[in-house]
Amino acid sequence: MAIRHFLSTQDLSRDELERLLDAADGYRNTKFGDALRGKSVALLFLNPSMRTRTSFELGTWQLGGHAVVLQPGKDAWGIEFAPNAVMDGDAEEHIAEVARVLSRYVDLIGLRAFPKFVDWQEDRQDKVLKSFARHAAVPVINMETILHPCQELAHAMMLRDRLGTKDFRGRKYVLTWTYHPKPLNTAVANSALLIATRLGFDVTLLCPTPEYVLDEQFMQQARGNVAESGGSLSISHDIESAYGGADVVYAKSWGALPYFGNWGPEKPIRDAHRHFMVDEAKMALTNNAVFSHCLPLRRNIKATDAVMDADYCGAIDEAENRLHVQKAVMAWLAGPAPA
Amino acid sequence: MAIRHFLSTQDLSRDELERLLDAADGYRNTKFGDALRGKSVALLFLNPSMRTRTSFELGTWQLGGHAVVLQPGKDAWGIEFAPNAVMDGDAEEHIAEVARVLSRYVDLIGLRAFPKFVDWQEDRQDKVLKSFARHAAVPVINMETILHPCQELAHAMMLRDRLGTKDFRGRKYVLTWTYHPKPLNTAVANSALLIATRLGFDVTLLCPTPEYVLDEQFMQQARGNVAESGGSLSISHDIESAYGGADVVYAKSWGALPYFGNWGPEKPIRDAHRHFMVDEAKMALTNNAVFSHCLPLRRNIKATDAVMDADYCGAIDEAENRLHVQKAVMAWLAGPAPA
Amino acid sequence: MAIRHFLSTQDLSRDELERLLDAADGYRNTKFGDALRGKSVALLFLNPSMRTRTSFELGTWQLGGHAVVLQPGKDAWGIEFAPNAVMDGDAEEHIAEVARVLSRYVDLIGLRAFPKFVDWQEDRQDKVLKSFARHAAVPVINMETILHPCQELAHAMMLRDRLGTKDFRGRKYVLTWTYHPKPLNTAVANSALLIATRLGFDVTLLCPTPEYVLDEQFMQQARGNVAESGGSLSISHDIESAYGGADVVYAKSWGALPYFGNWGPEKPIRDAHRHFMVDEAKMALTNNAVFSHCLPLRRNIKATDAVMDADYCGAIDEAENRLHVQKAVMAWLAGPAPA
Repeated sequence: MAIRHFLSTQDLSRDELERLLDAADGYRNTKFGDALRGKSVALLFLNPSMRTRTSFELGTWQLGGHAVVLQPGKDAWGIEFAPNAVMDGDAEEHIAEVARVLSRYVDLIGLRAFPKFVDWQEDRQDKVLKSFARHAAVPVINMETILHPCQELAHAMMLRDRLGTKDFRGRKYVLTWTYHPKPLNTAVANSALLIATRLGFDVTLLCPTPEYVLDEQFMQQARGNVAESGGSLSISHDIESAYGGADVVYAKSWGALPYFGNWGPEKPIRDAHRHFMVDEAKMALTNNAVFSHCLPLRRNIKATDAVMDADYCGAIDEAENRLHVQKAVMAWLAGPAPA
Repeated sequence: MAIRHFLSTQDLSRDELERLLDAADGYRNTKFGDALRGKSVALLFLNPSMRTRTSFELGTWQLGGHAVVLQPGKDAWGIEFAPNAVMDGDAEEHIAEVARVLSRYVDLIGLRAFPKFVDWQEDRQDKVLKSFARHAAVPVINMETILHPCQELAHAMMLRDRLGTKDFRGRKYVLTWTYHPKPLNTAVANSALLIATRLGFDVTLLCPTPEYVLDEQFMQQARGNVAESGGSLSISHDIESAYGGADVVYAKSWGALPYFGNWGPEKPIRDAHRHFMVDEAKMALTNNAVFSHCLPLRRNIKATDAVMDADYCGAIDEAENRLHVQKAVMAWLAGPAPA
Repeated sequence: MAIRHFLSTQDLSRDELERLLDAADGYRNTKFGDALRGKSVALLFLNPSMRTRTSFELGTWQLGGHAVVLQPGKDAWGIEFAPNAVMDGDAEEHIAEVARVLSRYVDLIGLRAFPKFVDWQEDRQDKVLKSFARHAAVPVINMETILHPCQELAHAMMLRDRLGTKDFRGRKYVLTWTYHPKPLNTAVANSALLIATRLGFDVTLLCPTPEYVLDEQFMQQARGNVAESGGSLSISHDIESAYGGADVVYAKSWGALPYFGNWGPEKPIRDAHRHFMVDEAKMALTNNAVFSHCLPLRRNIKATDAVMDADYCGAIDEAENRLHVQKAVMAWLAGPAPA
């Protein structure tokens, strides 16, 4: 029997997604449980984390399990991912052994592995995560690579609460690029695109120029999603029309893929679009929209203090939801296969 | 209702202090308890730690809870503390979000944040700790900033044991500066000053020159303390008279505040006072005094081997007490508000 | 009563060794237990670790205890080990205080402290481990210094399983040096030598030149072992005859001791022996030998993919066994002294 992993929400049926969100709802009220009683989880952070680490570690404990937090080699990890490699470089160990040994010790493996930010053609293949999933004998959870599916669930849970419905058809969702002094990972933007289209929203991807459109593999998945969910997807570079009538505004900064690893020429474009910051004037154009962001967020750069402190800001709730949804994901993966 | 924090012992009544010490006494005999059953604690170390981390982590576990140990950004942490900041510098996140999100995950937050050692006017405001306390929705514990109140309690517990009393009036307490090759944080010295004056000792602050007197905010609190407790406070630069008849000798090295961040001119003064090292000859001047130090301690620099290995050295007991007093503090903060 | 430590398998009787392996067998089937109920373990890593850390932390938890993982100072640790030192150098604390304080907090101390790789005459004394054991008031476990006794037990457990016997007399065991681009620690090689001779194997130490023979203190212990166990020990530089008829092939790379800390002249020797890599042709010379390695292992440098993926490779089992044997060791040390 194939092992179930949690690598992308695209691998789950809409029904499985809904059941995870319902289970997460339950954990909000019933903090403790037995779903991981006696089980252990390895949390591998190839990149730093605070929210993800805290919520996974606590969630495991609250369900009766134990999480081991590993930060291999801090920034660089000497692991070889290529099959048949002659390992005379820096890597001291092959993923085959790492994943097999960890599978003997633990019941679940969580992995955070950001892009290396040198070559998007390389990073877009998500090799670290996929190699782990291929070699592990236990379920693997994506704790953010080029997607951030746990954030997607937390976001969806917040949207259910704030919009008071599980049916988002006919609602307008704006995923807006915002300025940040550095080019950032596209993971949360890709994930927002996937989950919003999956949930049936009419999604507008608002970004400064066509160069900020997300990777074609995710754009294609998003187009497939709207075809199935009854939503729609459009791209806009016009702030006013994008915000107009929106029910949800989700903000994120990311680097434009054509400049990946060679960011010099992207900087002036980015710098010219500082005004994409979410502020009260823009929010006033919306249909009393919910605003959110995955955090961390630079105040008065990505969003103003007034927006962050407004009642319509769901960012803190969304962060809290990480705990609930991840418990649901772990309980699901550690539990029996569905009948 | 205002949240109770544990930022400084000065915020507690004398009665609350005594009850914490009594509770700590109980934990010495009854290692396990239910006070943190199902509760979680975030321990944030902006600076490294071994004793504090081990004792907090174990204490939480022994009371039924779970501690998540976070070391944000290792040395530097990209957190903004200023209200209304335009965050275009290094900080990736504002304290408002950090504290709010953590408050959703955990029941208590412990924080270690040493001074930056550049500008005492800045450091003396203890902004990191105070910002956490202001934004958190759960109690915050000072795990050492410019004060070290947990060490104070551990010290007081050792003094109760060694002197066999809870009433220290009429006893002489010497807080002596000692040499160290580098200028160190004043936190433990400030704390010793506060707790010794609070407990009613006749306190002598022994230091090389007037420049080593501690920050006026703590000197003033100490003067207030003796007015209330019936003790006294004096400053001395004379080793012999200071040690004479002492019942307690507590040693600590610290940098002179007038040279804070510009230590060059302080070095010759410090170097000229290597003879402040605690040795048997000095201890012989006392009234069979108890000696202690918060650790870590450089042997034969701050105190001789003979002093450290003597029966009158309470440093190991004091370190052990960290476990007991911190359990008392956590149980108190996590428990119901006093009637 | 003297404290029992687990520093080297040489300190244990053959009977104690066998009982530890039997107990480890039991933990393979009965994952959970009470042997560490309410007890705590400090795991001190002066060098990084993934397998050791995960297996010790999980093992402690599965037996009802709690492990605190400490990584003092990351690479360098400011601890003084010399008695009577005037501590005006980098060390901030003396081992006397570190070990005494930890002994107040926890019931067991695990320590990893690799050689500094500068001066073998210094490193071969294993001062860090021995100082801990001398000053601690609780049992100390060697988590790899210049020996790796936990790996020895895991290795022995795998050999019992794979060879289907507890009596290894008359079986041929080859400990083969393999190439690695850097000179590595001899700990696992020393340990393999000790345990294989202890178990009664006819042991061949296969290495490129006489300079790769291991430290005389361990060679001498190995000679003592075979005198007692009925095995034998020989040194070979000939691959074909060494592999011929072997029942076990254990591979490890290490630096030649005469070049310790001055590795320049060793490099051409090492580079000239890349062909020591374990491959199918060499394994074909054996008596259907079991192959193993302690991991991490560079594929196609130390052993080929075919060897690592073969059924006769016991490396993953051996890694799994770390969990079982360490639980046995901890339960033994934390338990009552044998009657």
